Amino acid sequence: MTTNKLAPLATALTLSTALLLSTCLITRAADEPISPIVPAVVKNPKLVELGKKLFFDPRLSKSGFISCNSCHNLSMGGTDNLKTSIGHNWNKGPINAPTVLNSSLNVAQFWDGRALTLQDQAGGPIANPGEMAFTHDLAIAFLSSVPGYVEEFKSAFGNDKITIEEATRAIAAFEETLVTPNSRFDKWLKGDKTAITPTELAGYELFKDSGCTACHNGSAVGGNTFQKMGVVEPYQSDNRAEGRIAVTKEEADRFNFKVPTLRNVELTYPYFHDGEAGTLSKAVDIMGRIQLGKKFTPAENAKIVAFLKTLTGDQPDFKLPILPPSTDKTEPPHPFN
Amino acid sequence: MTTNKLAPLATALTLSTALLLSTCLITRAADEPISPIVPAVVKNPKLVELGKKLFFDPRLSKSGFISCNSCHNLSMGGTDNLKTSIGHNWNKGPINAPTVLNSSLNVAQFWDGRALTLQDQAGGPIANPGEMAFTHDLAIAFLSSVPGYVEEFKSAFGNDKITIEEATRAIAAFEETLVTPNSRFDKWLKGDKTAITPTELAGYELFKDSGCTACHNGSAVGGNTFQKMGVVEPYQSDNRAEGRIAVTKEEADRFNFKVPTLRNVELTYPYFHDGEAGTLSKAVDIMGRIQLGKKFTPAENAKIVAFLKTLTGDQPDFKLPILPPSTDKTEPPHPFN
Repeated sequence: MTTNKLAPLATALTLSTALLLSTCLITRAADEPISPIVPAVVKNPKLVELGKKLFFDPRLSKSGFISCNSCHNLSMGGTDNLKTSIGHNWNKGPINAPTVLNSSLNVAQFWDGRALTLQDQAGGPIANPGEMAFTHDLAIAFLSSVPGYVEEFKSAFGNDKITIEEATRAIAAFEETLVTPNSRFDKWLKGDKTAITPTELAGYELFKDSGCTACHNGSAVGGNTFQKMGVVEPYQSDNRAEGRIAVTKEEADRFNFKVPTLRNVELTYPYFHDGEAGTLSKAVDIMGRIQLGKKFTPAENAKIVAFLKTLTGDQPDFKLPILPPSTDKTEPPHPFN
Repeated sequence: MTTNKLAPLATALTLSTALLLSTCLITRAADEPISPIVPAVVKNPKLVELGKKLFFDPRLSKSGFISCNSCHNLSMGGTDNLKTSIGHNWNKGPINAPTVLNSSLNVAQFWDGRALTLQDQAGGPIANPGEMAFTHDLAIAFLSSVPGYVEEFKSAFGNDKITIEEATRAIAAFEETLVTPNSRFDKWLKGDKTAITPTELAGYELFKDSGCTACHNGSAVGGNTFQKMGVVEPYQSDNRAEGRIAVTKEEADRFNFKVPTLRNVELTYPYFHDGEAGTLSKAVDIMGRIQLGKKFTPAENAKIVAFLKTLTGDQPDFKLPILPPSTDKTEPPHPFN
């Protein structure tokens, strides 16, 4: 009886404690330069499903062999894990393929930020002669020849005419779902102190204290500013990319690149715009020296690497899309001419 | 009360009717030269899951860019929908990539049957300089450098040493699951008379009456014999493949090729070992003339094509596999040298 009488009080106390705890946790996370990834909210499932198919469809390339997923492989951290990508006719790409995971959190797309939106970006590789080597017109002619696509575009956009704007909007809508919440670090940020080890936590403290978070901050742990590659000492590279100057034509933007996200960085090797850092350890070492003027000891390097590996979140979780077949009206691909 | 008393009798009658009907249906299906696809029974899920990852892993190629799924794309009927495939360094393959769907039902693998089993087949492209351009030793060195794979191999095979036999066995185990039951034609075979239209049925009758089922029979509607390409008149092709003679060295086997499965043939264009028939209509026309000495009228051709499109079954239905990451010990891919 006594127990029963006390029950409402106990509940009230539990609730207040929970409230108090949750307030503390919110405060705690707010104090950190990194914030948790917010899960995607799908507003238009039809558009996302269509975009997913387009993302996986190699028929958007001249060869019929290269899809968005070829270089932004969702089985491999949204990258191809190559220094620079392979394009049409085995073309050696000029720059490392950035991960598509969490790319919706970027201030702009491409290393030099030349596309302001995911939709703008999506049209680029399709028409790039060294990548998918198609044209927007041919892409639309292909899509319009496939009844399965005609139906899905109609269902998603409510009209009969397929356009490149619609196609890239669908791809962007799919890409917006490719965020990776629930990393161990995010669990720690949200208050689960057991989610990361003391070594990983020490790595995070060192990451902050060393100044890494000056650039690698926010929910993507990067992606939100352009910064010079080689602040303290110049970065040596055979790669010819000059960074943001290509967009702004301002000399001050030479070698300014979009700061890459460090989310899922364990999966997105090799690193830097030239892909020359094959390991996280090498990347941390170079960043320390050329950006911060710090030479991390092996023990410090290992701690930071341990922290970085806590940033791996939920990977894409959906069924392999089945693509609608071409028809007799579809122009076949031209892989060898 | 009367109703209740009669209930057991009614049940008995219903059961006998069902039994009788099902016997009729079995007899009916048994009378047909084509039998329904039997769904896969997964005996060893760990092995299948491992094989799925290996099937999707481009790191089994020298370039790190080409996986089994590149040419046997499970989003596109288990093929690449190219005349002949693209291999390492954009090599133009010598022959059309056969679908991996229902390949477990084939009498042997490859167009010339040079591999007796799926496991034998799986090792071929990995080490073929014009395909994945790797070696079995390098493939094993790669797998052994990835803790995620080491763990999965240990779990699937119960030992610590990864071998190419284990890797190909896992790929084969996954491929054995890639059968495509529940096509509309199979539903018709099992007694659902509404599953195909009168035109499609007329196409099937014509397919049988014309002699197509002499070669295209069994549950895969092909795949179970080698037959000469060009029985009534020679097949003209620039393709240099000579067929089964490459394996048997018997002159009688020149231009004998494994009869391709017609399951999912709507998805596996273009057709023939040289991929020169871009449409089903063209394939049916050529087959009629050179194999059977028949010139199908446009109406006949359309009926047969309509029937063939009823052979599309359940496509692969699983989540995109997420691959275990490489480590500092993993030799990076060599796409450009």
